[in-house]
Amino acid sequence: MRMVDIIEKKRNGNELSTEEIQFFINGYTKGEIPDYQVSSLLMAIFFQGMTERERADLTMAMVRSGDQIDLSAIHGIKVDKHSTGGVGDTTTLVLGPLVASVGVPVAKMSGRGLGHTGGTIDKLESVPGFHVEIDNQEFIELVNRNKLAVIGQSGNLTPADKKLYALRDVTATVDSIPLIASSIMSKKIAAGADAIVLDVKTGAGAFMKTREEARQLAEAMVRIGNQVGRKTMAIISDMSQPLGYAIGNALEVKEAMDTLKGEGPKDLTELCLTLGSYMVLLAEQANTLEEAREKLLTSIQNGSALQTFRTFLAAQGGDASVVDQPNKLPQAKYQIDLPAKEDGYIAEMEADSIGTAAMWLGAGRATKESTIDLAVGLVLKKKIGDEVKKGESIVTIYSNREDVEDVKEKLYESIKISKEKVTAPTLIYEVISK
Amino acid sequence: MRMVDIIEKKRNGNELSTEEIQFFINGYTKGEIPDYQVSSLLMAIFFQGMTERERADLTMAMVRSGDQIDLSAIHGIKVDKHSTGGVGDTTTLVLGPLVASVGVPVAKMSGRGLGHTGGTIDKLESVPGFHVEIDNQEFIELVNRNKLAVIGQSGNLTPADKKLYALRDVTATVDSIPLIASSIMSKKIAAGADAIVLDVKTGAGAFMKTREEARQLAEAMVRIGNQVGRKTMAIISDMSQPLGYAIGNALEVKEAMDTLKGEGPKDLTELCLTLGSYMVLLAEQANTLEEAREKLLTSIQNGSALQTFRTFLAAQGGDASVVDQPNKLPQAKYQIDLPAKEDGYIAEMEADSIGTAAMWLGAGRATKESTIDLAVGLVLKKKIGDEVKKGESIVTIYSNREDVEDVKEKLYESIKISKEKVTAPTLIYEVISK
Repeated sequence: MRMVDIIEKKRNGNELSTEEIQFFINGYTKGEIPDYQVSSLLMAIFFQGMTERERADLTMAMVRSGDQIDLSAIHGIKVDKHSTGGVGDTTTLVLGPLVASVGVPVAKMSGRGLGHTGGTIDKLESVPGFHVEIDNQEFIELVNRNKLAVIGQSGNLTPADKKLYALRDVTATVDSIPLIASSIMSKKIAAGADAIVLDVKTGAGAFMKTREEARQLAEAMVRIGNQVGRKTMAIISDMSQPLGYAIGNALEVKEAMDTLKGEGPKDLTELCLTLGSYMVLLAEQANTLEEAREKLLTSIQNGSALQTFRTFLAAQGGDASVVDQPNKLPQAKYQIDLPAKEDGYIAEMEADSIGTAAMWLGAGRATKESTIDLAVGLVLKKKIGDEVKKGESIVTIYSNREDVEDVKEKLYESIKISKEKVTAPTLIYEVISK
Repeated sequence: MRMVDIIEKKRNGNELSTEEIQFFINGYTKGEIPDYQVSSLLMAIFFQGMTERERADLTMAMVRSGDQIDLSAIHGIKVDKHSTGGVGDTTTLVLGPLVASVGVPVAKMSGRGLGHTGGTIDKLESVPGFHVEIDNQEFIELVNRNKLAVIGQSGNLTPADKKLYALRDVTATVDSIPLIASSIMSKKIAAGADAIVLDVKTGAGAFMKTREEARQLAEAMVRIGNQVGRKTMAIISDMSQPLGYAIGNALEVKEAMDTLKGEGPKDLTELCLTLGSYMVLLAEQANTLEEAREKLLTSIQNGSALQTFRTFLAAQGGDASVVDQPNKLPQAKYQIDLPAKEDGYIAEMEADSIGTAAMWLGAGRATKESTIDLAVGLVLKKKIGDEVKKGESIVTIYSNREDVEDVKEKLYESIKISKEKVTAPTLIYEVISK
């Protein structure tokens, strides 16, 4: 088998065989196939696409390129959730305890990463004492005991995907649906998921700018999952404005706790109930979507969800009293309001640039070397469609520096006020299950 | 300027600017832009094509990537001829002396290369004593004195094209019209041509299998040439069967001399008169195509063409008496005829595989390390459309080994005899001048 023939075959619009895909991924991982042949194949895939069979084969070839986490010692169906990324997305912090509290085992492997705020681990570390330095044995025991544990990414997971992603980034081959879909799915499968619930974001703050693109990606991932024996569902949700109110690490932990208490933002709560219901259903802890949702609501109302969060924090060294005394979380020195410059209705809250403003405060990493300030960030006081009076606060800025003129300016640029009434955007556009 | 943006721009179907093309070729030549970005761009070009302006810019950027031969000391308009390659193509050996004899300066830089037979230099070296080891000064003096000289490729011509070609070869990006056209044109222009006549071959034995592909390539090259101030013409000629009768080094020299005497194969003579007329016209040694052709015919008839060949050989150390005593050329030990197995008409003579049979005898190089046997090769006794009787010779095999069963078998596979009358293929399909 020769790589040049594989490139030509794809270039000419033909379907690659399972063996050809395995040969390419295996050879590339081992360094036997050079970058310049792979980038040429990636560009051919950009133009010619991949069939469902090819996408499933690519996904599994990447899964097999490295370690695969064995979660078989955990009782029950392990359901993982993945979001394609947005701003102020606190769902993971809420969903873990929420679905665990109704019996769904959540064995979460998470990272830090770059972005507007830290990753799930960074956020959780704003709870004093909390840590993810536990070994695999303890991780599995914790999930079996409490239904929820979080561990840092370890081992050599999907090295082929890592190499491919780095190459795609510099060869203009990132935005190809088959490549994005197989990249995401390979990571979830290698991390041991039996079933997967996907939250594909669309809108200005998302990678998929249009609903049509979001639908294509969602369908691609759902079909890969189902082809390789992992029950998979996806929802397409709005990211034209940030989700919930909080953008920042400790601020999002506080918001997650509010949500687990039944006092969270309406959009975040609704999204968590929807995603959570699908997780409960796929984990076979309910027979219908309605039953699943009912269980989750009950768990919030009777305090089980919050109690699961307390137990989870304590089991990994965290001070669970933060749940009742949120001021034990890191606090920013300054709280500065951003006053509306005119009367009207909020027409736009451009998620991506609001996220950037949060990063400027220190909430996220611009480079791997950046350090995160867990206390800082933004809390929206208004969202799209809300009425606002001149001088009323639209956003509270939580900062450890006094001068935040740059952040204010960025926020004013990102937020548009209209004289006309504005309808709030739909939160969940559609559900994709096959 | 970033290479990844250039790739994305082309991938999205946009036109690259002159500066972007220059940046990419310059950076790649210097090794500042890596292969993996270039191969990705090449694949994007394969799918998105290039505008005429981009093709011209790419050609000139490659010309400027290395040395450019300065032929300004040679009087007159230097017209170069290029053929896209075929089997038994003796035109260069005929055209040089033919057009030189009517006053067109021919400063030919030539190579050895791989293929069914050797390159022009290999062929000429079958003349005892002939050599191309002359310096630039002598080369220019010889062209000014005799209107014809041949020199080996020297200097660092179009290094960008060499690097690109090697990369295209292993990344399935060879067969892209803009890339082929700019590659050929850059080499001709760097070698100092003022005007260019192109012979684009089509048919089973050619790189361009269909007339439509050949037309696209011819048009692409003619437009590049005219855009960058080199008058350029192209003809599209048949390569479904070998050109002329001889395939082999000394055998082709003999055939060239026959043609210069007016006793050559009809197709080779016609093709040389056509290409030659355009060369004479572009060199402004005639006012019309008819006048040009008349001059060439006269030169053959009155012996000037042959005399120019004698002078040229002698000037570069060759034994010019071979012209009158062709048996001074290297002679093969065995002449073995290939008898027809049945009565009928020659229906097919698959040029490519007949060329391979010649290479098996030792006429060409399979790898750079192969040595060439100048004496061996094939001489066709029949061509497509000719009637043949069972037992009559179709091909004479000139060999230095007695057992040529492999060659015979290959030839029988390549040559089809039909019971029905067969029409000889058209030799020259069309002329492209803009």
